[in-house]
Amino acid sequence: MNSDDPAYTSTELADEDFLADFHHTSVYGATEAGGIDRQAGTAEHGAVRAWFRQRAEALGMTVTIDGIGNQYATYGWFPGEPTVLIGSHLDSQPLGGRFDGTYGVIAALHAAARVNHEVTAGRLDPAHNITVVDWFNEEGARFAPSIMGSSTMVGIKDLDEMLAVTDVDGVTVKEALDSIDCLGTDPAPEVAAYAEVHIEQGRILEREQITIGAVTQSWYTQKLLVAVKGEQSHTGATIMSDRHDALVAASKIVLFTEDVVENFEPEKIVTSVGQFTVYPNSPIVVPREVDLVIDLRASRTQDVLDARDTLKRQIADLAAERNIRIDVEDYDIRDIQHYPLDGVELTEKASADAGVSCMRIETMAGHDSVAVNRIAPSVMVFIPSVDGVSHCEREFTTDADMVAGVTAFTQIATRLVTGALDGTAPGEPVADATSERI
Amino acid sequence: MNSDDPAYTSTELADEDFLADFHHTSVYGATEAGGIDRQAGTAEHGAVRAWFRQRAEALGMTVTIDGIGNQYATYGWFPGEPTVLIGSHLDSQPLGGRFDGTYGVIAALHAAARVNHEVTAGRLDPAHNITVVDWFNEEGARFAPSIMGSSTMVGIKDLDEMLAVTDVDGVTVKEALDSIDCLGTDPAPEVAAYAEVHIEQGRILEREQITIGAVTQSWYTQKLLVAVKGEQSHTGATIMSDRHDALVAASKIVLFTEDVVENFEPEKIVTSVGQFTVYPNSPIVVPREVDLVIDLRASRTQDVLDARDTLKRQIADLAAERNIRIDVEDYDIRDIQHYPLDGVELTEKASADAGVSCMRIETMAGHDSVAVNRIAPSVMVFIPSVDGVSHCEREFTTDADMVAGVTAFTQIATRLVTGALDGTAPGEPVADATSERI
Repeated sequence: MNSDDPAYTSTELADEDFLADFHHTSVYGATEAGGIDRQAGTAEHGAVRAWFRQRAEALGMTVTIDGIGNQYATYGWFPGEPTVLIGSHLDSQPLGGRFDGTYGVIAALHAAARVNHEVTAGRLDPAHNITVVDWFNEEGARFAPSIMGSSTMVGIKDLDEMLAVTDVDGVTVKEALDSIDCLGTDPAPEVAAYAEVHIEQGRILEREQITIGAVTQSWYTQKLLVAVKGEQSHTGATIMSDRHDALVAASKIVLFTEDVVENFEPEKIVTSVGQFTVYPNSPIVVPREVDLVIDLRASRTQDVLDARDTLKRQIADLAAERNIRIDVEDYDIRDIQHYPLDGVELTEKASADAGVSCMRIETMAGHDSVAVNRIAPSVMVFIPSVDGVSHCEREFTTDADMVAGVTAFTQIATRLVTGALDGTAPGEPVADATSERI
Repeated sequence: MNSDDPAYTSTELADEDFLADFHHTSVYGATEAGGIDRQAGTAEHGAVRAWFRQRAEALGMTVTIDGIGNQYATYGWFPGEPTVLIGSHLDSQPLGGRFDGTYGVIAALHAAARVNHEVTAGRLDPAHNITVVDWFNEEGARFAPSIMGSSTMVGIKDLDEMLAVTDVDGVTVKEALDSIDCLGTDPAPEVAAYAEVHIEQGRILEREQITIGAVTQSWYTQKLLVAVKGEQSHTGATIMSDRHDALVAASKIVLFTEDVVENFEPEKIVTSVGQFTVYPNSPIVVPREVDLVIDLRASRTQDVLDARDTLKRQIADLAAERNIRIDVEDYDIRDIQHYPLDGVELTEKASADAGVSCMRIETMAGHDSVAVNRIAPSVMVFIPSVDGVSHCEREFTTDADMVAGVTAFTQIATRLVTGALDGTAPGEPVADATSERI
């Protein structure tokens, strides 16, 4: 290693420095109600990413950008060798919260700088380089699908196909990346191990009064694309019995989707309709079509499959009863992924070292770590969310919990750069519906 | 009168000429499924209006355009004197039908030409001029409110306010009118009487096997603007009991709106939600807000008021139960209007003269005649719609019914130009909820 190289500076960073950097990021895309609106590839997103590059370089890291716009800030003690990748994402939902993703990037930035400080001081002997990653487009609000940057980097999404994805105004991902100077040509680094810290976005840690969640698995998720096809007619002249109202049928599907959870164990399944578009959407026209997306997620694969079957049966009955056509298509199926048990145990040990409480937990939401876990052993860590709210402006986590998270995460990064997960296999998706109970 | 003036030509028009003109109009904004898409102020609307001007001038009429873009084509036997106004509108809903409005304009064009032919032949002695009107923006799909041109002409809408109305892209009515050469400066004519023929858009005439409907009254209508305000959150991380899902609540309101008709006599009330917009409308975000418009219409004012009260009570209970906020605002209230009884009887006599069957009927939909009826005695006439469907591409009326309608409508126009409704008062809105039963 070449830690004597004067290019590598070392800065000792305190908790206050972390908090200053984290809270500074909230100015980019700040909303009046205390959230942020920083969708992927917008000017606000470009601004926070430019700040990230400057800050990382000031801390002695070398920044590169790959072809799908992921940014990598590296302490390259072993040039060209594999790296421990740590990070999250800086993009947000529309009117989203300032912690989701951003906390993980800034925590990783400070953890890497602290590790580097130990290395340059000669107190830590690394086996791998360390790299902070800022993934492109985790949220998927402007450009679908979500988890785009990490999925492309690991090879489960095609680069050219992703660059050609358009937003509602017809702007491509490639054009958006170019507009914020993030269309890179650098190769992605080879990953020795991956770790990500994120707010829980649920209320389990808060309820249990535990600071760190060691994430064991992701939930099984899938969407159903539903197109309800009725017939357009005049609201003022069409008697009720002559109508084929797509909106009334679609509204029943929204209620079926909420009610189906009653068949399952509470808090082990969530179901939603988030996207719901009415045509022609005129006050005096009975709607001819509604396109909607059902989102089903559960701890157990079989629960999602059962909910899906119930909904498909109810929807078929509804179409027959109201004499309309309803098309239903399975979409975006994501199998349960276990994070390697070695990594879960590593989080437990690192928390103990840091003097903070820890429990095992599952993730209901998708994260970049779910994608990276396919190519490298990955560690996913949660810190508490107040009231469990996320993807909204009142999303909140306390400074104390954020600081404790950085302390524990620095311990995790330290163990990873010294090779704690060398030899551990990446996670595998669990396709068998009966085997994923924990 | 100066019918010897060589400027006034007279052409004898056959039923085939009417059908040729009517079917020609369908080329402007034709859709693949046999309908038209000719929203107010678009290029397609401009094209059919330009054709109308040319055709009217070829038939010897003088065309003028007023400040809100209504087009008037006049046989001015008595220059500057009041006129019998007959017509309808050439704009359509998005993916609308080719009969709604257009039939009434072309039927009026041919009725006026036939009346003129009788006048120039010395077989008819008119008391008034006759003018065919093509009202601007009856549909209100691109620019709200509907019935814009006639409402402005009669003075119940303010000209400057209407010219400043914008579409979703921010284009004003004034700009749209200018773009299709329809921003006129001519005064509107003084109206002696008004008549309009329109497809029924319901199925009563078809069921009763009657060719002409003599319209007695409009229905009471009102809208409710509803804003359902929940809380945005993550579909993947928010457990069901923590959600304040605006879409689930809004879906219940759609079903309340359909179900409320069960309290009333069938076919005497219609209720709908046509406009329904979800925010932020992202597949993985629990919706924070839905804005929707409820449309209530009934033959009896009290039925609408009762339905409104029931819905407002149900909505208040729903807001309390789901711990969200729901704002409800009354909007676009239109009292019942009776058409003058003299005009209804005139339609019955004219139908008898023309040898076609006639019955009295009410209009559930709004029409330009409802506005004009405030300033001049107005006659509203229906011809049958196949299957009662309208505001959609499969809207249909047979050539035979259209031709019979022109024959009867020519008789009506003939009676009006000879002064049959001179001395009859315009219609009055009926504000008393108990007195409007017929």
